[in-house]
Amino acid sequence: MNKVGIIGYGITPFTKEDKKIESILFDSTKELFKNNSHISRSEIDAVLVSTNSNSKYLSPILSEMAGIQPKIAHSIENLCNSGTNSIVSAYSYIASGLADLVLVTGAERYDSPGSVLEWDNSRGEFKHPIFWSSIFSKSYKRKFGITDEQLAIVSVKNHKQAIENENAFSHKTFTVEEVVNSKQLTDDLRLLDCSRPCTGSASIILGSEDKVKELSENPVWITGIGQKTTSAGFTKNTSFTSMDSTKQAGNVALKMSKKNISDIDVIELHDAFSVCEPMALESLGLSQEGKSMDMIKELHDTDNFKVNPRGGLIGCGHPLGATGIAQTIEITQQLQSTANKRQVDNSKTGLVHNMSAAATSSTVLVLEK
Amino acid sequence: MNKVGIIGYGITPFTKEDKKIESILFDSTKELFKNNSHISRSEIDAVLVSTNSNSKYLSPILSEMAGIQPKIAHSIENLCNSGTNSIVSAYSYIASGLADLVLVTGAERYDSPGSVLEWDNSRGEFKHPIFWSSIFSKSYKRKFGITDEQLAIVSVKNHKQAIENENAFSHKTFTVEEVVNSKQLTDDLRLLDCSRPCTGSASIILGSEDKVKELSENPVWITGIGQKTTSAGFTKNTSFTSMDSTKQAGNVALKMSKKNISDIDVIELHDAFSVCEPMALESLGLSQEGKSMDMIKELHDTDNFKVNPRGGLIGCGHPLGATGIAQTIEITQQLQSTANKRQVDNSKTGLVHNMSAAATSSTVLVLEK
Repeated sequence: MNKVGIIGYGITPFTKEDKKIESILFDSTKELFKNNSHISRSEIDAVLVSTNSNSKYLSPILSEMAGIQPKIAHSIENLCNSGTNSIVSAYSYIASGLADLVLVTGAERYDSPGSVLEWDNSRGEFKHPIFWSSIFSKSYKRKFGITDEQLAIVSVKNHKQAIENENAFSHKTFTVEEVVNSKQLTDDLRLLDCSRPCTGSASIILGSEDKVKELSENPVWITGIGQKTTSAGFTKNTSFTSMDSTKQAGNVALKMSKKNISDIDVIELHDAFSVCEPMALESLGLSQEGKSMDMIKELHDTDNFKVNPRGGLIGCGHPLGATGIAQTIEITQQLQSTANKRQVDNSKTGLVHNMSAAATSSTVLVLEK
Repeated sequence: MNKVGIIGYGITPFTKEDKKIESILFDSTKELFKNNSHISRSEIDAVLVSTNSNSKYLSPILSEMAGIQPKIAHSIENLCNSGTNSIVSAYSYIASGLADLVLVTGAERYDSPGSVLEWDNSRGEFKHPIFWSSIFSKSYKRKFGITDEQLAIVSVKNHKQAIENENAFSHKTFTVEEVVNSKQLTDDLRLLDCSRPCTGSASIILGSEDKVKELSENPVWITGIGQKTTSAGFTKNTSFTSMDSTKQAGNVALKMSKKNISDIDVIELHDAFSVCEPMALESLGLSQEGKSMDMIKELHDTDNFKVNPRGGLIGCGHPLGATGIAQTIEITQQLQSTANKRQVDNSKTGLVHNMSAAATSSTVLVLEK
């Protein structure tokens, strides 16, 4: 299998801007070429678009706008982990030899049709993800004796970390009291426990080993990939306090990269809601079951940015199709030591965790310098 | 690169049935497993869904319905060539070693939102593809001195061939007079010159060399792949009488398979409208420019099914996301000598041509026994 690395990226601020998906896609693509003017558009073999937008033919449209005539061009959708699905697809095009240089651009509008999964009748009358996240929160708190105040630390920490990320949707910090007193959505969920849908765009260029060596002075390699879909319906989950698809994807990704979870220096994980952060940490093996809130509190108290340095989904906002790409860009910056005030010292190996629909589907990537 | 082959398929009749996209997807998947009961669902590494439907998370939904827990799961969209984009993506997952067995299912409803490309303002007030196909028809007829009656032979031939295809949408034959006297849509287009949107589903399983040898007694290999996107906007085409993206994709696919166009025994090409058949034949090099109507007439007169044996899009109907997969199934059947009355004798090498949006994007596949 050919080695695959990350050559460049472009990302723009996450906002509530009301503009066309085609323009949003173009925003981070322009930024990418501004950051990487040495990359020739004529060398790009594939353009993959990650989005939940209902607009069609977005890859050829983006290609035309950007002046690219790719061989391979299409859109990829799998709700909230569309971004990492697109990166893995780009990886496979390069590793198979069908492409040497692939642009992956993810974008979403704040009012994305991917925010709700109409099909999942197991969510009862509540189609919105707050239904499953409420049940996750109630189950996790009950099983492990965790209070609302303890769980609120996730939101406090990630909003704090987002302050150092100029592209984040949130620019405010909050106290534990402010989180637990924010608008009550259900018995177990407050507004500040939720990542917010927003408008955002993120682009990345992946390349073959030769292209990476030619075009990047500070390359980052994708050395581990794990993906798993266990179901589509929320109630098919075997547990409401851990993430089975994440466990399986994590094991496969670590095995492929020949790493242990203890080798991971920095991690972007899918905190769509506060409870997802401890559940993901535990499912990935970074903590024992029910014990990760201690770790999260310590990271917060010591200003250690190891988990969700860019502010996670809670701090950054969640433009669905862009999220997995933005997570991957953050880990790239960390491994390149270009994350400024968010920098986690001595980051050599990083992990991305991106999931969909109550963790019925997960992607885990391992990245190395 | 690992060799990739076709292990099995399932296809169901193309209709105007009004049912949910999830059920339509499941129809051909069920058929596939009925035809291939020796394939274990637990061995399937990836499920790719090809569709223009606005419904989300269709790959995990189809997987849950079919009893599959794949590693890789997502939807792929690129308007009318979504199907072959999905097949090429499956190919890359297998060739890269990320997957050994991939299910690709395409489906569409008759009222697909992919029928119109709102973005393309170069189509003026006519968003529907009849705009560009009218200009193609007028340009082709004028440049090469072709009459409406001559062009009508494409529709006559393909409707005739579809009679031998039990899954085709059309079950009628038409005379040249009936085609030219059918409802006039524009100066240069009659209703019977158009493929009709319909409800349809087609599934295919691709595998690595080891899996193909283990699971298929009559394997077909994908030996050539070419893809090209030149633009998204109709008027960016450099010619209205030939297909530049098809030329480029065809050359790459033939080169990869080490074949000449004269080696091709049977071909499925994208006759979205009558004029597309001669334009594609010429762009692929099967005929000189402006000369292919003679070839088409001879094929018709001699009952030779070499071009579009299943009846093409005009005879079969055009369920967008399923079309490229249905074309690939037809060539598979031809190479396996299981095409019954449609069988083209001594078919050893076949070609699939699938395109989108006025040929701004094309895929060409070469298949071999």
